[in-house]
Amino acid sequence: MSRFFTEKYASLVPYTPGEQPQNRQYIKLNTNESPFPPSPGVAAAAAREAANCRLYSDPESRLVSEAFAKSLGIKRENVLAVNGSDEALNFAFMAFGDTLVFPDISYGFYPVFAALNHIPYTEIPLREDLSIRAEDYLNTGKMVVLANPNAPTGIALPLGDIERIVHSNPDHVVLIDEAYVDFGAESAVPLIGTYDNLLVVQTFSKSRSLAGARLGFAIGNEALIRDLNTIKYSTNPYNVNRMTSAAGIAALEEDGYYRENAKTIQQNRRYTTDALRALGFTVPESSANFLFARSDAIDGGELYRKLKERGVLVRHFDKARISAWVRVTIGTREQMDAFLRETEEILNEVRA
Amino acid sequence: MSRFFTEKYASLVPYTPGEQPQNRQYIKLNTNESPFPPSPGVAAAAAREAANCRLYSDPESRLVSEAFAKSLGIKRENVLAVNGSDEALNFAFMAFGDTLVFPDISYGFYPVFAALNHIPYTEIPLREDLSIRAEDYLNTGKMVVLANPNAPTGIALPLGDIERIVHSNPDHVVLIDEAYVDFGAESAVPLIGTYDNLLVVQTFSKSRSLAGARLGFAIGNEALIRDLNTIKYSTNPYNVNRMTSAAGIAALEEDGYYRENAKTIQQNRRYTTDALRALGFTVPESSANFLFARSDAIDGGELYRKLKERGVLVRHFDKARISAWVRVTIGTREQMDAFLRETEEILNEVRA
Repeated sequence: MSRFFTEKYASLVPYTPGEQPQNRQYIKLNTNESPFPPSPGVAAAAAREAANCRLYSDPESRLVSEAFAKSLGIKRENVLAVNGSDEALNFAFMAFGDTLVFPDISYGFYPVFAALNHIPYTEIPLREDLSIRAEDYLNTGKMVVLANPNAPTGIALPLGDIERIVHSNPDHVVLIDEAYVDFGAESAVPLIGTYDNLLVVQTFSKSRSLAGARLGFAIGNEALIRDLNTIKYSTNPYNVNRMTSAAGIAALEEDGYYRENAKTIQQNRRYTTDALRALGFTVPESSANFLFARSDAIDGGELYRKLKERGVLVRHFDKARISAWVRVTIGTREQMDAFLRETEEILNEVRA
Repeated sequence: MSRFFTEKYASLVPYTPGEQPQNRQYIKLNTNESPFPPSPGVAAAAAREAANCRLYSDPESRLVSEAFAKSLGIKRENVLAVNGSDEALNFAFMAFGDTLVFPDISYGFYPVFAALNHIPYTEIPLREDLSIRAEDYLNTGKMVVLANPNAPTGIALPLGDIERIVHSNPDHVVLIDEAYVDFGAESAVPLIGTYDNLLVVQTFSKSRSLAGARLGFAIGNEALIRDLNTIKYSTNPYNVNRMTSAAGIAALEEDGYYRENAKTIQQNRRYTTDALRALGFTVPESSANFLFARSDAIDGGELYRKLKERGVLVRHFDKARISAWVRVTIGTREQMDAFLRETEEILNEVRA
């Protein structure tokens, strides 16, 4: 820390992103990216728009917002395009966070955004089986933040539970982070017309293979979106660049490709879940493009390190309650076979 | 404002970006973009990298940061890549702003960032001729923010004055916003090794024709850059997307093209300055890719509106001290001729 750094953030502990190794080639199952490249139209659209980059991007991101809203059957005024869904989360915490409540085990960025914005928060423990108890989020008197499906567990809440939570907290925003919704959970987007306190966040980083392009959306009542725009126009009006907007529009036009990929991921998830359970792992039923897994035979940190030595990257969280676990992104069948093979060999080693 | 919006930002007045018209074609001289397209390698590089967008971008933006640092003869540890230089400004205000001082007439985003971050600030009036008096910024006991050249005046401060200011405020960061430096001002970057309180911000939006790609840099002592990273990793770790990084690297490799373009802009600036003065305008000598101009014959707002009716967009600021003025981006010779022709006709009309 330099001698100039503000006291306001002196105790801030930043988020630690998953490794993005630049040298060695890994079987990369650590940051929940898609194993499938963007659809064919994306690169062409991005190249076309790169040639127009002398001009600022549209601060309203009209075209990509309209295309996205249309795909959901809602209006452009109900969506805000952002530079990755993290930006939407930060804007929402800024705009609506007075006091917060979220699960003790969830996306690791929530407590960071809370600390950044000096918002007091309460972490509610997941059940023993790592599922969310919906009753814990009724009538909280606070802004509620839930990932559905939750990360890193992969466990989804039924839409009925989400609605009960939104309904019972009418004076606070309920933020549903649907980064992984396309892999098997029910989206809360159809409820935004009914509840003016519901804000949904989605991303193109997972099911749409565009993590490296940075595109996400906040979705909600027009008044909520206007408030988020107040924050956006006070931080970074041209937040989404031209190439990314063009890539996003192209991806929406080729939606069938991404739906097929999501189905393949779900099949590979079933396959990997069963195989890990056969190896003695505890694996909660996942609705996301990753699994959370734990074995009595080996600690999570050790499994992570041994897999990395063997060229397979998974994610381990250095957090007491989940230190026994690893999170494994679902890739291609070949990647999952390689992961399973190495895992089995490691188990044989430690048992020997 | 929704009933959920936080009181913290209830009085926040967002920045108003210049118009980005999506329908009618204008001679667009209102947002200081380059009239020249990105260099040939940019689109190819962006397209190549679009195909890799299933993977997150490197959170450290190593490659583009190294290329940029090398172009300045400094180390990667001295630079931070950002999603447009506005992001660097906001991060710097967050990290180093306790109390601030900047000119009363400068980039309109400074007071917005100050308000967003609840930082008290003092605006120091420019001289009558709209130049900055360096003495006003000595020993301020505050963080100093100066655009050099200043916007919207275009007037540059000599490097000697910048150094005096940096030297006399050793306990506060002095931020020099060099968005327009490539059009004729002296950069303060060579001083970062001498002064640990100097932070320079640059952008690829102006001289490098990449406004729509969103790429900027903060440049300074390693400790300052580390602090900015603490903020970045607490807001948006993957702030610069893959296509933009690739575009930035390609632009740096084709540096000669952009230097030639900057020379052309300087020639067109000379030409336009002289022509406007011949029409009776007051035009301070500009070191940027825009002019600030005022005529006794017509109010700034009126000139802006009449030019817009005729298909020429310039920028007018609704601020008492400069309401008589318009800011005119320097484009191609043909664009400037069209602007001058319409301006002369408008003057003839109002004088008739």
